[in-house]
Amino acid sequence: MEKQLSFLREIDQLKNVVRKSPLIDQSRKENSAEHSWHLAMYALILSGSSNQTINIDRVIRMLLIHDIVEIDAGDHPLHESTNCENQEKLEQQAANRIFGILPESQSEELMALWQEFEAGDSNDAAFAKSLDRMQPLIHNIATNGGTWAEASVTEAQVKERYGPTIAKGSLGLWTKAKKLVEKHFE
Amino acid sequence: MEKQLSFLREIDQLKNVVRKSPLIDQSRKENSAEHSWHLAMYALILSGSSNQTINIDRVIRMLLIHDIVEIDAGDHPLHESTNCENQEKLEQQAANRIFGILPESQSEELMALWQEFEAGDSNDAAFAKSLDRMQPLIHNIATNGGTWAEASVTEAQVKERYGPTIAKGSLGLWTKAKKLVEKHFE
Repeated sequence: MEKQLSFLREIDQLKNVVRKSPLIDQSRKENSAEHSWHLAMYALILSGSSNQTINIDRVIRMLLIHDIVEIDAGDHPLHESTNCENQEKLEQQAANRIFGILPESQSEELMALWQEFEAGDSNDAAFAKSLDRMQPLIHNIATNGGTWAEASVTEAQVKERYGPTIAKGSLGLWTKAKKLVEKHFE
Repeated sequence: MEKQLSFLREIDQLKNVVRKSPLIDQSRKENSAEHSWHLAMYALILSGSSNQTINIDRVIRMLLIHDIVEIDAGDHPLHESTNCENQEKLEQQAANRIFGILPESQSEELMALWQEFEAGDSNDAAFAKSLDRMQPLIHNIATNGGTWAEASVTEAQVKERYGPTIAKGSLGLWTKAKKLVEKHFE
């Protein structure tokens, strides 16, 4: 139990990883811990919109842990250029260190779940990634452009950067999102 | 889907409900959205410590939604006197309004889950409540007293206010917590 409590104290730091996305009331930027909560709620509410048969409880677990590596590796904003190879290396090192605080069997379990999310190939991971792309889109539309306005992102770029990932997990969500995007840019 | 997205936008406000508990680095107070994420992680990691057989995925869902009523009813700190009857009424009204944004079947499902948590009688709810009491205890100990120091709470009061709820869900967690509390007050 000592290792488990050490891990639970360690991940408190995710509350201080600030993302680019605004809260809907625009009072401040969102942090990665509350973002993870919000995505777990997206999964719970939107599970019926997945293209494929999914295990929603595995999707929720994935979303709860998907950003923990940012404690060491930082957030990786969609509309900024990133050295992807370096970022992947940093995130793997972060996963080794942070999940490694746990007892071995739990550490291995969380590592496998995080790697499945990162790969994005399984039905559960594809739906989790779809929600992780959908939520900031909803926030940008609700805040008069949000990170799109800040980074001068065009309608075509939004469709290109959000469409494939959202549609891979949920065609229904992308159909809805596409309409919202088109209305926003009008 | 329109109702579901409205609900998901509405609950963004939980990120602005500020609790009494500090973050472990003491940079600021915790909000109820990131607290809900942290508790879901407590459940995932500590599920083996429950007294009774539980469905951990139901516990996680309960903890994800348990504080949503605070958007309307506010937080209800443990070490402050509260008009309990009035608070219960406010929370029930909040649940009606906020869960009522969802399609009917989902609204009923979340309402039932929240009421089960509030009652605290089922095995799943008892464990969820145990974690909801354990996490702020860990934060208080990690921050040189936290809300106990602020409200001049004694060792006896801590044992009385935390012990029964934590022990009801997990004797193992209370055995550990009791030792930490005694060491802290030494």
